[in-house]
Amino acid sequence: MIHSSEATSPLLEQLHSLGEAAISAAHALAIATTGQKNDALLKMATELLDDEQSILEANHSDLQQAKEKNISAAMLDRLMLNTDRLHKMVKSIRTTATLPDPVGRVLKSWKHPNGMLFEKVSVPLGVLGIIYESRPNVTSDAATLCLKAGNATILRGGSEAFHSNQAIAKSLQKGLQKAGLPEASIQFVPSVDRHAIALLCEMDRYIHCMIPRGGKGLIETVKRHARMPVIKHDDGICIAYVDASADLEKAKNIILNGKCQRPGVCNALETLLVHPHIALALLQTTGEALLRAGVELRCDEKVLHLFPTELKKEFANQLKKAQPEDFKTEFLSLILAIKIVSSLEEAIEHIQTQGSHHSDLIITEQEEHAERFLREVDSSTVYWNASTRFTDGGEFGFGAEIGISTGKLHARGPMGLEELTSYKYLIRGHGEVRRS
Amino acid sequence: MIHSSEATSPLLEQLHSLGEAAISAAHALAIATTGQKNDALLKMATELLDDEQSILEANHSDLQQAKEKNISAAMLDRLMLNTDRLHKMVKSIRTTATLPDPVGRVLKSWKHPNGMLFEKVSVPLGVLGIIYESRPNVTSDAATLCLKAGNATILRGGSEAFHSNQAIAKSLQKGLQKAGLPEASIQFVPSVDRHAIALLCEMDRYIHCMIPRGGKGLIETVKRHARMPVIKHDDGICIAYVDASADLEKAKNIILNGKCQRPGVCNALETLLVHPHIALALLQTTGEALLRAGVELRCDEKVLHLFPTELKKEFANQLKKAQPEDFKTEFLSLILAIKIVSSLEEAIEHIQTQGSHHSDLIITEQEEHAERFLREVDSSTVYWNASTRFTDGGEFGFGAEIGISTGKLHARGPMGLEELTSYKYLIRGHGEVRRS
Repeated sequence: MIHSSEATSPLLEQLHSLGEAAISAAHALAIATTGQKNDALLKMATELLDDEQSILEANHSDLQQAKEKNISAAMLDRLMLNTDRLHKMVKSIRTTATLPDPVGRVLKSWKHPNGMLFEKVSVPLGVLGIIYESRPNVTSDAATLCLKAGNATILRGGSEAFHSNQAIAKSLQKGLQKAGLPEASIQFVPSVDRHAIALLCEMDRYIHCMIPRGGKGLIETVKRHARMPVIKHDDGICIAYVDASADLEKAKNIILNGKCQRPGVCNALETLLVHPHIALALLQTTGEALLRAGVELRCDEKVLHLFPTELKKEFANQLKKAQPEDFKTEFLSLILAIKIVSSLEEAIEHIQTQGSHHSDLIITEQEEHAERFLREVDSSTVYWNASTRFTDGGEFGFGAEIGISTGKLHARGPMGLEELTSYKYLIRGHGEVRRS
Repeated sequence: MIHSSEATSPLLEQLHSLGEAAISAAHALAIATTGQKNDALLKMATELLDDEQSILEANHSDLQQAKEKNISAAMLDRLMLNTDRLHKMVKSIRTTATLPDPVGRVLKSWKHPNGMLFEKVSVPLGVLGIIYESRPNVTSDAATLCLKAGNATILRGGSEAFHSNQAIAKSLQKGLQKAGLPEASIQFVPSVDRHAIALLCEMDRYIHCMIPRGGKGLIETVKRHARMPVIKHDDGICIAYVDASADLEKAKNIILNGKCQRPGVCNALETLLVHPHIALALLQTTGEALLRAGVELRCDEKVLHLFPTELKKEFANQLKKAQPEDFKTEFLSLILAIKIVSSLEEAIEHIQTQGSHHSDLIITEQEEHAERFLREVDSSTVYWNASTRFTDGGEFGFGAEIGISTGKLHARGPMGLEELTSYKYLIRGHGEVRRS
């Protein structure tokens, strides 16, 4: 049903049709059994394998177009599919089929004084809008995770991966159809018109939650237009504080792991705060190790002053004076901002006001300091003596991850299958009525 | 800190100051002990009592202004404060002080294979924006509930209750101050400029969640402008389905309770679906009782046809032919739409597509039908043989209620203190780093 005032374009009509079909598919999915959903997942995996040829051909044509547009090598790599990457998508679907069904869990049950039985049970969220960029594997990874949780999806991928995404979605729909579930459980917006994003964001009649996955521009657009809840990932400015009593060996291992193991991800370290009592020793150990690993250090005056002279000479190119904005920057590369803070309080204050509330860390041997840090720092994950790189659905034991939420409502931190559900209350009575 | 491009008006500057103060207060509240928060609640209650005179005077001037504007009697009643109503607010604060602290609960804990300990603990949401209309008690009820959950609030009440709200907020702030908690934990927007609502909705840097409480217009405005999550209450079109096997006595009690006990609230019954096998008997019993209770029945053709002739004559004024929109209307008065549906499936289909997913009900003695209804109807609360009037935080045993959410993310159905919290993960390690 399209309201006359809204039926202004063929694109809008198309999106409304997708919305209506998604709502109806979501009703069917909500009552599908675990067996039906798993069967569909396995059939989708098989279809992807069977369609390898046509998917890679579609990807080839996306790559050709991208090359003509002189797209960066990094972006081309993200866009590229090959047998190995396709098999990874298939493996991930098969893993999802083995995970416990997040729907139908009894979260709580109790009795009213009048005898009525209350039950709080998990149910799907409904219809999810997934708006994403470049990597075509998101089409399969996100849609199949959502399906396991009983949700229908409307997918809108980047225009550069249009043919790849469409081919993947087509295979998934064949799997759904063979398993007897509605094809509209997974729908791909068949248009590259950029206007579609804003239009989808206004469709709160059909889409219960929007999950944007991509750069700041995309997230900003979705946040601005969305009339439904948005689960999003903003900055990951992860901060480590090395307390006076820190174990230097642990500090070195944790900080090197945080900064160097995979610098381009959101749980990598970006800022290092150091207590003055341990600063010199830390620079002589961890500081040198970071420099030898190729990390550029942006240091406040005190840190620069403390750096051993021989290191300053050897690594002149990697030692820079920090600017204030360096402590608010997600570098996503081998750069680390370093600053001396006079106390645990100052470290916490810095993290609370300058950080991004993603993952923050204290390295200390003093339990009292650690516990205070854990209590007072309000971030999705707060660490004591362990690498921030563990902020990840897999490491959390969630089996799979749709993303990491930097919001505080509904889902915070790594989002697995359980975070893709809502709940409802069931009340079983015997004719009870309310008296007051 | 106001971005230059945003510093366009004194109102905006004022709102940004409120935002900054709220963020800072929220940090303090998040680590306040249960004792500190309860002490503050009791002191706020005392201040309200002590300030009775000035609060009632402020209310008097609001009432005077309202009368000059020829406001309706119902609205004047909502606006009016007296000793009794003030004492109710005080009592509600004292009750809140006795409730368990929703912050600091360990929701889950587990161990990583490498030995790190994971803990998921509840934390406050942060800063909440409460935008509401007319009733001045919301100022106290909402702000103190949010405070118990460690949240700072920015309150924006209706302009008609401006002086009352401001006086109440002032008393609450005196209580906070005497208890040593930041006064900015509860702030009232000191302006009646309607533009303030849209400006607050754009302040996602300071406000983590918006809770509008009021009519459709207000909720629509907040939904349209808000860049942060919104927890809202839309329609409550509660539907009862009377199955072929229903117990007629239970049906009569439950339906009368649902429609007549308090017709103006969101959990009152608005639509009645009836199986043909029981329709005549139901009209002869429940139907007559509803008419005698003064309820106008808007019936489909089949129902009108079935109605006993003598009732049709006696209650000619209360028996009307239903229009399609009657089955999508929240009457909030003594009106009920009635329709015959041919089966349980048709009833479920009607509820899923025409209902508001608030509270829906099956009356049946057949367990299989009841369980199917409970499973397939996706509403915040689904009932078997009990009145929909029980959808209420108090009846759910939540102790207090900030409202009833009709959304599916974060909170669904009655929202108590627990729904006013988020969570964070604490990870305690021994130097663990990630290998892959």
